[in-house]
Amino acid sequence: MSHPPVYERVALIGLGLIAGSMALAMKRAGLAGEIVGTARTAATRGVALKRGLCDRVCETAAEAVEDADLVVLCVPVGAMETIAIEIAPHLAPGATVTDVGSVKRAVIDAVAPHMPDGIHFIPGHPLAGTEQSGPEAGFAELFENRFTLLIDDGADPDAIARLARLWTEMGARVEVMDADHHDLVLAVTSHTPHLIAYTMVGVADDLRRVTDSEVIKYSAAGFRDFTRIAASDPTMWRDVFLTNKDATLEILGRFTEELFALQRAIRTGDGEMLHDYFTRTRAIRRGIIDAGQDTATPDFGRGGGKR
Amino acid sequence: MSHPPVYERVALIGLGLIAGSMALAMKRAGLAGEIVGTARTAATRGVALKRGLCDRVCETAAEAVEDADLVVLCVPVGAMETIAIEIAPHLAPGATVTDVGSVKRAVIDAVAPHMPDGIHFIPGHPLAGTEQSGPEAGFAELFENRFTLLIDDGADPDAIARLARLWTEMGARVEVMDADHHDLVLAVTSHTPHLIAYTMVGVADDLRRVTDSEVIKYSAAGFRDFTRIAASDPTMWRDVFLTNKDATLEILGRFTEELFALQRAIRTGDGEMLHDYFTRTRAIRRGIIDAGQDTATPDFGRGGGKR
Repeated sequence: MSHPPVYERVALIGLGLIAGSMALAMKRAGLAGEIVGTARTAATRGVALKRGLCDRVCETAAEAVEDADLVVLCVPVGAMETIAIEIAPHLAPGATVTDVGSVKRAVIDAVAPHMPDGIHFIPGHPLAGTEQSGPEAGFAELFENRFTLLIDDGADPDAIARLARLWTEMGARVEVMDADHHDLVLAVTSHTPHLIAYTMVGVADDLRRVTDSEVIKYSAAGFRDFTRIAASDPTMWRDVFLTNKDATLEILGRFTEELFALQRAIRTGDGEMLHDYFTRTRAIRRGIIDAGQDTATPDFGRGGGKR
Repeated sequence: MSHPPVYERVALIGLGLIAGSMALAMKRAGLAGEIVGTARTAATRGVALKRGLCDRVCETAAEAVEDADLVVLCVPVGAMETIAIEIAPHLAPGATVTDVGSVKRAVIDAVAPHMPDGIHFIPGHPLAGTEQSGPEAGFAELFENRFTLLIDDGADPDAIARLARLWTEMGARVEVMDADHHDLVLAVTSHTPHLIAYTMVGVADDLRRVTDSEVIKYSAAGFRDFTRIAASDPTMWRDVFLTNKDATLEILGRFTEELFALQRAIRTGDGEMLHDYFTRTRAIRRGIIDAGQDTATPDFGRGGGKR
């Protein structure tokens, strides 16, 4: 590569889908001098080495962060505080610590109090993922044209700019916002939709009169998109809902209100209300295509892998 | 083609996504001697001729069905009875009449009473579609490896077998079931998921504190899949909910019950309940991949058109 790496040594704490994808994206573009990783289980560490995600694996987070100028916390939100306490005494002076958790206020509460002076703590959240998890799941293209949100919680602007450059070079579009706004936006665009998808899939599973096999066979009619969302990592999502409780409950309240209004329109046969509502939601789809976050190519009802 | 067509003359009443896809699939495999079509507007009829969906278009349904041995009603469910009354006196003796509506009991109630003696009325429902609609939207591959459900409402077995052969040759997997079971299964796999997706997209639209542009920008985090579902044809979906009212309301009731249980677990911090629930729903996804109705290729968060 003609340009120097953005960081000399990157420590990945946790080696799941996001960490693996970061490792592959950093390697592809020569963004890290060395990538060191750690994970709870020896099996995960083994896969990470075998896939070439890391140049070196360590058994503990404390070891992994030594002399790293970037530390990325890629563990479920509920595990952040334990890790922060463990690594704090071993962080190199001036290092940047970031994370990839789906909620941000709770991560700040868990991590910030433990960070020593001189450490740049910059919470982050790449809006990218698949329903797969684990060290086999990552791929270098995961972040391409997806947003990564960085939280300005008072960190040094140069440190934020450097981390933003790393994400940009991995293919992401970077925006900086504050933690509470992040948590509300994500409650709308991600957390509540996931909870709803989980619920709908659970209902189908419970319904004994309609056998599982029929639900599965005929899933292409709409339900299939819900099952993809509802197949995401259970531990990660448990932690999301427990730690973004207020925003999720607020959006859920609004959702239930609207659902009851539509349910009433169905019960009373108010076709005009239904038609107006469905016409309005169609416009939002158009906005997403125009914003480049999806294509107009028909996909619903087809296998994504067929293209 | 070395084999004779399955039907000598097929009349398509309505020329939207499904009719257009049927036309292209029948032409590709030489399944129809002639395809005649009609649509409400001259603009739609013009596009259908220009795209080569029909060999001939007629201004009225009454004309279109003349001498057809297969008539396919491809209009919204709410328009079925008017069409049935219009075409009844013009149907050729021994013709098969089918439809592609998303609910089946209501279509039987609307159409069957008007069918003359000697007509084989076999309601049908291809479980395929995209969020696009209109005469430009169809494509020959739409039904490949998707189920088409035919309803045995007492029609002649040979007529059912012949219609099943048409669908099979268009690439579909055919199953025969009764109307009420169809309507309940579809309430679970399609109708309720669509209503929920519409609701979630409506909530996002209402939320003024989170601007539309942010919701759209950050949609890749889960919300995007909902917007795709919620972009489907408003008239078709209004009619689905008005005509499959009982089953939809029953499934919605179960959905709300489950959602409240999960909401309570979030409020009380019951992480174990959430984790167990999310683990159970993951298994359903595995079943769908095993049933060949989707692939395990990561797609969530990526544009379907990129693969």
